[in-house]
Amino acid sequence: MIAVALNMAAVSITSPDGNLVLHVELTPQGAPYYTLDYKNKPVVTASALGLKSEQLDLTNGFRIASTDTMSVDRTWEPVWGEYSTIRDNFNEMAVNLIDKDHQREFTIRFRLFNDGLGFRYELPVQKGPNHLTLKDEVTEFNFNGDHKLYCIPGDYDTDEYLWSETTFSKLPEALSNYARHSEAQRVNGTTIQTPMLLKTDDGLYINVHEAALDGYPAMLLDVDTENYSMKSHLVPDRLGVSAYLQMPFNTPWRTLIVSDDARDILASQLVLNLNEPCKIEDTSWIKPMKFVGVWWEMFTGYQKTWAYSDDGLAKPGITDYTKLTPNGRHPANTENVKKYIDFAAKHGIDGVLVEGWNEGWEDWGGYRKNRQFRFDKPYPDFDLPALRDYAKEKGVKLIMHHETAANAADYELQLDSAFRFMKNNNYDAVKTGYVGAIIPRSEHHTSQWMVDHARHVIEKAADYQIMIDSHEAPRPTGLCRTYPNWLAQESARGGEFESMGGNPPSHTCMLPFTRLKGGPMDYTPGLFETKMSYYNEGKDSQAGTTLARQLALYLTMPSPIQMACDLPENYDRFPDAFQFIKDVPVDWADSKYLEAEPNQYITVARLDKNSDDWYVGAITDENARTATIDFSFLPKDGTYTATIYEDAPDAHWKDNPQAYRIRTIKVKPGTKLKQPLAPGGGAAIRIVKNTK
Amino acid sequence: MIAVALNMAAVSITSPDGNLVLHVELTPQGAPYYTLDYKNKPVVTASALGLKSEQLDLTNGFRIASTDTMSVDRTWEPVWGEYSTIRDNFNEMAVNLIDKDHQREFTIRFRLFNDGLGFRYELPVQKGPNHLTLKDEVTEFNFNGDHKLYCIPGDYDTDEYLWSETTFSKLPEALSNYARHSEAQRVNGTTIQTPMLLKTDDGLYINVHEAALDGYPAMLLDVDTENYSMKSHLVPDRLGVSAYLQMPFNTPWRTLIVSDDARDILASQLVLNLNEPCKIEDTSWIKPMKFVGVWWEMFTGYQKTWAYSDDGLAKPGITDYTKLTPNGRHPANTENVKKYIDFAAKHGIDGVLVEGWNEGWEDWGGYRKNRQFRFDKPYPDFDLPALRDYAKEKGVKLIMHHETAANAADYELQLDSAFRFMKNNNYDAVKTGYVGAIIPRSEHHTSQWMVDHARHVIEKAADYQIMIDSHEAPRPTGLCRTYPNWLAQESARGGEFESMGGNPPSHTCMLPFTRLKGGPMDYTPGLFETKMSYYNEGKDSQAGTTLARQLALYLTMPSPIQMACDLPENYDRFPDAFQFIKDVPVDWADSKYLEAEPNQYITVARLDKNSDDWYVGAITDENARTATIDFSFLPKDGTYTATIYEDAPDAHWKDNPQAYRIRTIKVKPGTKLKQPLAPGGGAAIRIVKNTK
Repeated sequence: MIAVALNMAAVSITSPDGNLVLHVELTPQGAPYYTLDYKNKPVVTASALGLKSEQLDLTNGFRIASTDTMSVDRTWEPVWGEYSTIRDNFNEMAVNLIDKDHQREFTIRFRLFNDGLGFRYELPVQKGPNHLTLKDEVTEFNFNGDHKLYCIPGDYDTDEYLWSETTFSKLPEALSNYARHSEAQRVNGTTIQTPMLLKTDDGLYINVHEAALDGYPAMLLDVDTENYSMKSHLVPDRLGVSAYLQMPFNTPWRTLIVSDDARDILASQLVLNLNEPCKIEDTSWIKPMKFVGVWWEMFTGYQKTWAYSDDGLAKPGITDYTKLTPNGRHPANTENVKKYIDFAAKHGIDGVLVEGWNEGWEDWGGYRKNRQFRFDKPYPDFDLPALRDYAKEKGVKLIMHHETAANAADYELQLDSAFRFMKNNNYDAVKTGYVGAIIPRSEHHTSQWMVDHARHVIEKAADYQIMIDSHEAPRPTGLCRTYPNWLAQESARGGEFESMGGNPPSHTCMLPFTRLKGGPMDYTPGLFETKMSYYNEGKDSQAGTTLARQLALYLTMPSPIQMACDLPENYDRFPDAFQFIKDVPVDWADSKYLEAEPNQYITVARLDKNSDDWYVGAITDENARTATIDFSFLPKDGTYTATIYEDAPDAHWKDNPQAYRIRTIKVKPGTKLKQPLAPGGGAAIRIVKNTK
Repeated sequence: MIAVALNMAAVSITSPDGNLVLHVELTPQGAPYYTLDYKNKPVVTASALGLKSEQLDLTNGFRIASTDTMSVDRTWEPVWGEYSTIRDNFNEMAVNLIDKDHQREFTIRFRLFNDGLGFRYELPVQKGPNHLTLKDEVTEFNFNGDHKLYCIPGDYDTDEYLWSETTFSKLPEALSNYARHSEAQRVNGTTIQTPMLLKTDDGLYINVHEAALDGYPAMLLDVDTENYSMKSHLVPDRLGVSAYLQMPFNTPWRTLIVSDDARDILASQLVLNLNEPCKIEDTSWIKPMKFVGVWWEMFTGYQKTWAYSDDGLAKPGITDYTKLTPNGRHPANTENVKKYIDFAAKHGIDGVLVEGWNEGWEDWGGYRKNRQFRFDKPYPDFDLPALRDYAKEKGVKLIMHHETAANAADYELQLDSAFRFMKNNNYDAVKTGYVGAIIPRSEHHTSQWMVDHARHVIEKAADYQIMIDSHEAPRPTGLCRTYPNWLAQESARGGEFESMGGNPPSHTCMLPFTRLKGGPMDYTPGLFETKMSYYNEGKDSQAGTTLARQLALYLTMPSPIQMACDLPENYDRFPDAFQFIKDVPVDWADSKYLEAEPNQYITVARLDKNSDDWYVGAITDENARTATIDFSFLPKDGTYTATIYEDAPDAHWKDNPQAYRIRTIKVKPGTKLKQPLAPGGGAAIRIVKNTK
């Protein structure tokens, strides 16, 4: 069928539409490599494949023993997401390699989709050693030009960086501009992280990432800026080991999403397709949601704190927290949380997140301490039973918060009791956090042990029917397909930074091309008061956004769990704009990417999963822009009313961010709307079918 | 009172009996040091005190701000042990040190007992940093001669070594003779472990150890063989950090047990006295016990295995163990365990330990794997419900086994469910194991994190009313006083080595002077068949013991949990000797050390806690010896019958180990018995008061 055996040492397959051609060959030394062409032009030039371990070298000395090929065209239905049905259509080739003495063997499995390539290493039981101490993965992604790169610096511990738009040759300069995070392990040289995006002079877009990261460390990319080449750089533990593997083992998939239309990169479901189907039998308890939270108060200039007391280091070793002196600036108190519950109930918001509810924040920064946080001990001013009952009465769900201070070992220790405590108190979802240097101290945020940890947490959560929104965890690789209770992750520079220097408007024009390919992000949109000076004259941070753009983010940053991040009082100042946040769904039947260019603009239309309403979001970078919204996605059989939340003509992210207008127009499938967007602005549209 | 302020920079105290004098002084640079005299002769010469951290230097620049002194004379009653009442009698001096700028302050608390010294560092809240990254403890133990040393090599991961009897000057040669354990981290140079013993030419005995090791790494000793000096060497983690401390913090006590009578070293309760009182309110569930077990079968030449299957590495990744091929050499099977239960029930033995009952042993040696053992999954041939019910019906307790393969992180993760599983199945005690290289990989067996781990396990066990017998855990420092559910530990070369080269007779003449000062050892005495060639001609290991000596070990190696380690079939061969094991108690009202010399001999008499019966145990090294047993410990008001289990005249540990005699004699308080002991032999005596 598809595979064409060129000779004993070379095989090929094409994508179902014939645009992509994958070629696999061995060097005279028996080292496997691959190439990838798109529409008859090289995308990836000859690039090495293989793994090196202390026990076995799986990089050369092989021959192709056989190849297994198949074609698959199937669909599946995610529990939530951008589409109600996803097509999984690929041609597959498994290249089985064996050495001369039949002592070493492994398979490289390739899946070629219309929108890109995935491949992984499959290590069967060996005649020789079956426990491998992995030292290196030699996988290369070699290119043939000084392409544009959209990327963030290599780091073993954090991905909370702004994006560079650079080229191979200018990468060193771009990376030199980044500040170092204090507790994170930046990688020297020209190492970058995935997901990253390339753009060729020919206008070809290439996203490089991985899928189904499980039992293996995350992959960074060492960039050879002279040869336009990238090589896998596995995150090691602090002993210098990449992974401890037991045969049989399959690595994650290495993924390349390829298209000459930027919209295809956004629409691609390749990473999800390469993940295992849902492992949770009954998913009825997994519910997409919107929430408000006791959270942004701590980021504003109000000087509010997660900690109940300022005694902190002055009175360490405290075990009876009622003996601490309250600092009076602790928003996670009963009265204040009730206000949030009232607000959520009034506006039909599903949940209320409360950070700073539990003992331990006085030791914040004391990450050297083994036992810091307790996940079953509310602060004295947080009357959990009363709030639990109050929330229930109001039909609102409290959302739990587990900040581990990066002590993942301690979290594993407490996990069962913490989840039991949640269920006993009517919590169904938890935001987890891993701020600081990891304990076990042998580990980084993205080393193998932490990847194992993340899977353990999500599996255990599923046992308890708990949904997870994880922050500072290994960046997503589509595992939310397998564990759809993993609603979202942070794993990028999120909305919190609007209070710490701000995110430029282009930032959210970049994330959907990169970070979001692994899964949804808890970006926390909905910021109506964008200037921190509003709270405190001394605080000059300003968000890189207009108010209207914040509404559009609910469309351009799709997630089954979306925060309305601002304070209730700010929503009360702009109730007509807040109406959009109340209306906008978090789960979709279909999505149409109308316009897209990385780092510049995105326009997307989505169909609500639970109604016939369509929504459109459009954003631009720091430049004003006129989006063209072609309503041909609308069903032919009707006329529609579109309510447009847009930047006012004089709006500007910096000088006039809160200038917005709301207007209503009639649209039909033929309509092409020229929609102006302010610098750093955006537009959000709700489209309702007119009743006859 | 006791403290005599010599000048602004020097203070002293004496022991209650006046024999010991402690002197503390500062150098002109403000560096604290101490000396210790015994009967007007120097024991410890000027020795440094202090701690070094990244944030604060607590070694010099200090003055004595004040001293607090007190005298204490009190008694307490241990839940179990060698004595029903223990006297805690000391003079205390807390030396409060402060620097010129009042930025650094700490206290060194000294407790001077008649039998030795304990001191610790107490770090209060500092004006400056309150989280310290400890790099070094400079505590010295300096001596004034080329004393005899009894010690084992420094190692971060194991203490399972034979003892060297050497001197400072000959230490390098002695240490060069030790083989390295494959996965353990031996310390190069002349580093040794505590507890260790010194003997001076004057006949003074000095035991160096520590008490109440909690939240801190274990202390090794760097020996300066030219200057007869020893310095604290804290076990670091693999990042090179000794400890992560938060103020306030108290270090463990550094201990010196001192006497010119070797018997006082054995009788000393100094380490226990320096530990915190029992933290468990209701201790009624803590029950000393004897047990047999499915264990020794795996050490003999029978080739039996902990694993259910030999598929092992050939079929890794198996999750359904019923699909493995049974190897037929798996003693932890229902039928065999029933035989052990029958044997225990017949002979009044309290418990039956079963090793190899749970899934995971096929991966043995695969310590690189994160998740290996499951503590709630019996093997297919181990019918746990049936055995649970059978044991209950027979009045026997099954003892759980948790081999973690040194994956302490994974054990913490499973701990709650593992303990719940135990209680649901009527288990009250567990033998834990940590064989291999520790996970978290940042840690050693005795680094701070593992010390924390051990305390967490014992506390959690107490919550579940579970007793612990821990193997390969940080060596004991008297914490069994605080947590008396910590019945015993291994933490030394135990009886298992009799099948792997053998332990020389002197080994058990050394352990009570060293290892046992921290707490009881699960040494597993009771070996009747001492030659492994009995099982398999090809196996030539032989235990360094006569049969009679094995009975004496129940007295000389006191423990609230004692195994009768041999196979039931071997006890059936010598039922009259086995009678002593059936009779001997494991908990004592009083103990009298009658004769003692390290590495040579020990004779001890003990009074049963639950009757008026006395027991005597006497052992010798590889030389024959005549023990003198002075029965003046017996109450004056009666006559007694002593049943003596002794070596036959031609007995010899190597050539004729099973030659024993049992005789009965009348004794009274005046009796002085000359009791011959064979080379490598011993004698065990039960003394019952005659009824009128």
